[in-house]
Amino acid sequence: MRIGELSERTGVPAPTIKYYVREGLLPPGTRTSPNQAGYGPGHERRLRLVRALVEIGGLPIAKVREVLAGIDAPERPLDSALGVVARALEQAPAQDGRAGAEARRETDGIARERGWDTRAQESKLETLAGLLETFRELGQEDLAALVGPYAEAARLVAEADIAALQARSGRDETLETMIIGMVLGDALFRTLRRLEQTRLSGERFG
Amino acid sequence: MRIGELSERTGVPAPTIKYYVREGLLPPGTRTSPNQAGYGPGHERRLRLVRALVEIGGLPIAKVREVLAGIDAPERPLDSALGVVARALEQAPAQDGRAGAEARRETDGIARERGWDTRAQESKLETLAGLLETFRELGQEDLAALVGPYAEAARLVAEADIAALQARSGRDETLETMIIGMVLGDALFRTLRRLEQTRLSGERFG
Repeated sequence: MRIGELSERTGVPAPTIKYYVREGLLPPGTRTSPNQAGYGPGHERRLRLVRALVEIGGLPIAKVREVLAGIDAPERPLDSALGVVARALEQAPAQDGRAGAEARRETDGIARERGWDTRAQESKLETLAGLLETFRELGQEDLAALVGPYAEAARLVAEADIAALQARSGRDETLETMIIGMVLGDALFRTLRRLEQTRLSGERFG
Repeated sequence: MRIGELSERTGVPAPTIKYYVREGLLPPGTRTSPNQAGYGPGHERRLRLVRALVEIGGLPIAKVREVLAGIDAPERPLDSALGVVARALEQAPAQDGRAGAEARRETDGIARERGWDTRAQESKLETLAGLLETFRELGQEDLAALVGPYAEAARLVAEADIAALQARSGRDETLETMIIGMVLGDALFRTLRRLEQTRLSGERFG
């Protein structure tokens, strides 16, 4: 199909499609004449994925490129590619190095209880410790008690995430589902949390 | 205290503090001489809150101002102020109006089952329908099945959120906790989801 049809089918304007091609997020179409290129179903699929990452995930272009690099290296085995994608999607902790020794002791204790590998999960534990430190700085140290019920809820969500991943066969399908699940899953949970908060505060405060 | 001490205590550079004052996020200090102002514990507390919203929540300055406006209108009763803050923190659905009739029927059905008020929660249900539509467009319609376990997890999180809010007495304390809980809670859950995903995928794929 031509760029016009690709644009119509996906709702992405043609100049944006060209921009994505220039940025390496979408493979170029096949030249069909000096100033025309043809696009196939693979382009459409990739374009929808890029769009979701940008519009719903709010990912910057450079981050999208980094995430897609995990798929676009077919020589890389699945488990290593999953790791590349997961690291690309991990947010840099804004509060890096801010956590004091007490917060780190606390998160190491939680990690032992919950069976998290403290070495492999170091950067996430640092983020967690930074959040606990921030609660403390804000005079809300009792909010650290949220970690228990939140972690239990996170386990339910992660179980569902992994089950969805296990339902996929094939390397590219698994990687795509992982990317979509990570990014859209955050948005999905945030929306459901707001819905449940509003329902409950109506019951308790209304 | 002078601006230098405020900066040292909070880790926020003095030019940033001045910028927040100009932007109306922080009340100006009390003039103590023609070119000096004094700041108190109220300034320190507010500055830490602004910093968390910007650095951890990633909120743009205009959004921070909108959120704080909910606190800084003492004539507004608590339940109405909670509403102002909640709406300010609701993210504009990037996929507005994209959801087809089928996705909307689906979310209305979920809303009835879970007791969400379809009228009061209209914009959140539209976001939810947009996410389901996006799963479909990405050829991942089976991910709609995530809504069940995710909503159950969201209920656990929301119960903990509301309990934390009910532990507060006083209007400003309740509003502050709500803001902090909403913004840092999202970051906390995201981090815990990643930790649990990594633990589980180690078990299942490792």
